Amino acid sequence: MPNDAARALPELIQALGAVVGARLSTAAAVRDQHGHGESYHPTKAPDVVVFPSTVEEVAGVVRVCAEHAVPIIPFGTGTGLEGGTVALHGGVSIDVSGLDRIVAIRPEDMNATVQAGVTRKRLNAAIRDQGLFFPIDPGADASLGGMCATRASGTNAVRYGTMRENVLGLTVVLADGRVVRAGGQARKSAAGYDLTRLFVGSEGTLGVIVEVTVRLYGIPESMSAAVCSFPTVADAINAVILTIQSGIPVARIEFLDDVQVDAINRYAKLDNPVAPTLFFEFHGSTAGVVEQAEQAQAIARDHGGTDFRWATQVEDRAKLWQARHDAYYAALALRPDVKGWATDVCVPISRLAECIVETKRDIQASTVMAPMVGHVGDGNFHLTFLVNPFSAEEMAEAHRVNDRMLARALAMGGTCTGEHGVGYGKIAALENEAGEAVAVMRAIKQALDPGNLMNPGKVVRTWQES
Amino acid sequence: MPNDAARALPELIQALGAVVGARLSTAAAVRDQHGHGESYHPTKAPDVVVFPSTVEEVAGVVRVCAEHAVPIIPFGTGTGLEGGTVALHGGVSIDVSGLDRIVAIRPEDMNATVQAGVTRKRLNAAIRDQGLFFPIDPGADASLGGMCATRASGTNAVRYGTMRENVLGLTVVLADGRVVRAGGQARKSAAGYDLTRLFVGSEGTLGVIVEVTVRLYGIPESMSAAVCSFPTVADAINAVILTIQSGIPVARIEFLDDVQVDAINRYAKLDNPVAPTLFFEFHGSTAGVVEQAEQAQAIARDHGGTDFRWATQVEDRAKLWQARHDAYYAALALRPDVKGWATDVCVPISRLAECIVETKRDIQASTVMAPMVGHVGDGNFHLTFLVNPFSAEEMAEAHRVNDRMLARALAMGGTCTGEHGVGYGKIAALENEAGEAVAVMRAIKQALDPGNLMNPGKVVRTWQES
Repeated sequence: MPNDAARALPELIQALGAVVGARLSTAAAVRDQHGHGESYHPTKAPDVVVFPSTVEEVAGVVRVCAEHAVPIIPFGTGTGLEGGTVALHGGVSIDVSGLDRIVAIRPEDMNATVQAGVTRKRLNAAIRDQGLFFPIDPGADASLGGMCATRASGTNAVRYGTMRENVLGLTVVLADGRVVRAGGQARKSAAGYDLTRLFVGSEGTLGVIVEVTVRLYGIPESMSAAVCSFPTVADAINAVILTIQSGIPVARIEFLDDVQVDAINRYAKLDNPVAPTLFFEFHGSTAGVVEQAEQAQAIARDHGGTDFRWATQVEDRAKLWQARHDAYYAALALRPDVKGWATDVCVPISRLAECIVETKRDIQASTVMAPMVGHVGDGNFHLTFLVNPFSAEEMAEAHRVNDRMLARALAMGGTCTGEHGVGYGKIAALENEAGEAVAVMRAIKQALDPGNLMNPGKVVRTWQES
Repeated sequence: MPNDAARALPELIQALGAVVGARLSTAAAVRDQHGHGESYHPTKAPDVVVFPSTVEEVAGVVRVCAEHAVPIIPFGTGTGLEGGTVALHGGVSIDVSGLDRIVAIRPEDMNATVQAGVTRKRLNAAIRDQGLFFPIDPGADASLGGMCATRASGTNAVRYGTMRENVLGLTVVLADGRVVRAGGQARKSAAGYDLTRLFVGSEGTLGVIVEVTVRLYGIPESMSAAVCSFPTVADAINAVILTIQSGIPVARIEFLDDVQVDAINRYAKLDNPVAPTLFFEFHGSTAGVVEQAEQAQAIARDHGGTDFRWATQVEDRAKLWQARHDAYYAALALRPDVKGWATDVCVPISRLAECIVETKRDIQASTVMAPMVGHVGDGNFHLTFLVNPFSAEEMAEAHRVNDRMLARALAMGGTCTGEHGVGYGKIAALENEAGEAVAVMRAIKQALDPGNLMNPGKVVRTWQES
């Protein structure tokens, strides 16, 4: 790790200024804002924040950092959940929000190329008039660069896949400042190693993603959404399992436990039944959506699903989904003045009911408060631990429940993170899960970033640390 | 590159024998059979062929090769098209056909784990009774290990994706004999670098794939297929473009040019109209398939499509598709005693008509014979050059037409290979396409295979060669 004390900050700042001019800050407020994500992780501010507005400027900044042996931390919107933007070893935070150009929209090929700082909502606003949409929705209005770096997914992934499936190509600035393009516009390619997929999910540790080409989809002719309550968690999840196993192409199928529904009711003054709840959405032709909805509703009824509320109009669907989208902030409002620690596991669909029921039992037997939500069609669910990070006791208890959930997911053939990434919160969990494969990841990291300057301390323990 | 002359073959054979016993051959016929694929590429036999039957045996063989500094060439069914199995520098061919165990079929999670030597048809036979199928169909009855290594796709990719989208995890033997698992059974994961996608398409240059977990799909409630002729190539391809842009979820949409249809008519004694032809297949619910088929037929009619022949019964569909599946051998039969050189490009869908029309024009102005087929829903198409590989003149002409097609695809934002891979036939084309990204590929190759023993001379020129 570069020696913090050895850095000559004034010279660094001067050299960075030669690249980005005044778009650079060492103000405490700016540095602090860039030293954390949206989670419980201890924060650490970078030494400098730069705001490049072109790919060339990013390359210039990276070259300066390489010359000064200073860590580089890419920053999108700061909405990550595993501490990916925390400047563990100080260094330069590269805020890509100024890379805000929509480079090309190609409706005829159903793809778009955007710079890394463009957010998903901005992209969607730009393509709506052409009858297109970009489906990946991790909740936050994250930047496409950040979503790419964390391999984001969210509510629509069960139908449309994750960033893994929806990035056609990208441009990345490597640790030495070289600008490299991976992938392209072809829908498929067998041309060499899949560098696109290697950078998707690399969390800034292999390079700075500066441009992304993503797949777009036609806005479906028809969409319909529904909410439905169940007597027990197992009933709800078994309905999900059967829906997926039946091959019904649901666009979204989201689970909220009773604690989370209660939180939303209080937060948004709603009166949803306080019970395990599923949110469905169906996309397709008018006839197709009716067919899907009937099939899913029949399965839900067989599992005790009641109180179906349907929404087919845009406004009604938006209102219905708002409850789901508010989940995180509603959970936080249950215990003001604490932090939210959003956890994340994903298991094979057949084990989901078992995994969720056992996890709920742990929470009920614990002192910790932790509402649950899940992108259950993928086997992915989250707890939001509501904890005081300064209470050793609370943190220890949350860790205990979380560690048991991680071990449970792993034992069921699952993964320690379906979508939040590793950051620095899940390095040990990744090692448990991947075993010897971590050595392969480390070899790749070393090959592409021999100085360990790209977001050091994230994803893999590096050779200096291990 | 290891010095061929320096190798002590008897010691190598003895050490390999200690691992695989008698399942080893140096017979010329066996070596020759393992020194080529199904294409025009000059062949070279390995020094030894081994037939391991367990993962441990593969690891043992690799360790022996590492100790002796001898190249390792993984071999599936030998049906590759870019010379991937040719033992350019001699060495040991690892025939994985003995890794033939179906490890697990998990209908409840819609996935299966198989050893690398299991072929796609065997997998499909094993899961059919459970109402499941594995969609990737590259034509040949290839091994899952080989399909994984080449990132295979084929006729169903337009609906179900390629091996890239359908491999959940894999086990690989690295260059030093370590056995590493990547991915798992979860449908999505953000746990570290995407090693699964790195090994998918690595063509044996980063490790020997020994086990693969793939996604399975429910056999659709309804399937329907159709063939349709068009007045011109442009009409046919414009119908494809509009079908895709309309979001009709076709399961297959295949193009055959007039030359290829004529070849099939002669080969299979059929009487299809000798004209540009599309094959369609639709999967879904009974109502959904009718809806899709009506929409696609309307688009085809608008582009002059005539002579619709429909098939909904299993036998009729099989008969209809047999014509398409025979394409390669039918093409070869047009000029007996020559070799087939199957080329492969893929372009963004909006450029497909232009790319195909210009390529057809080149062929018509050339002395070379080259029927055309395409997985056109993906923007992917092939020529089969029918050439005498010993005629410098014919080969030069085929290369000229091919080079122009590659350049054309690249200029249109496409790729030099949609599905056949790089092997040793397309290294220069990959360099043209990927530019600086090839240096990243080379760095990864060097990190994971510092001795350059894993299928040397394929995909990337290595540091020794460059």
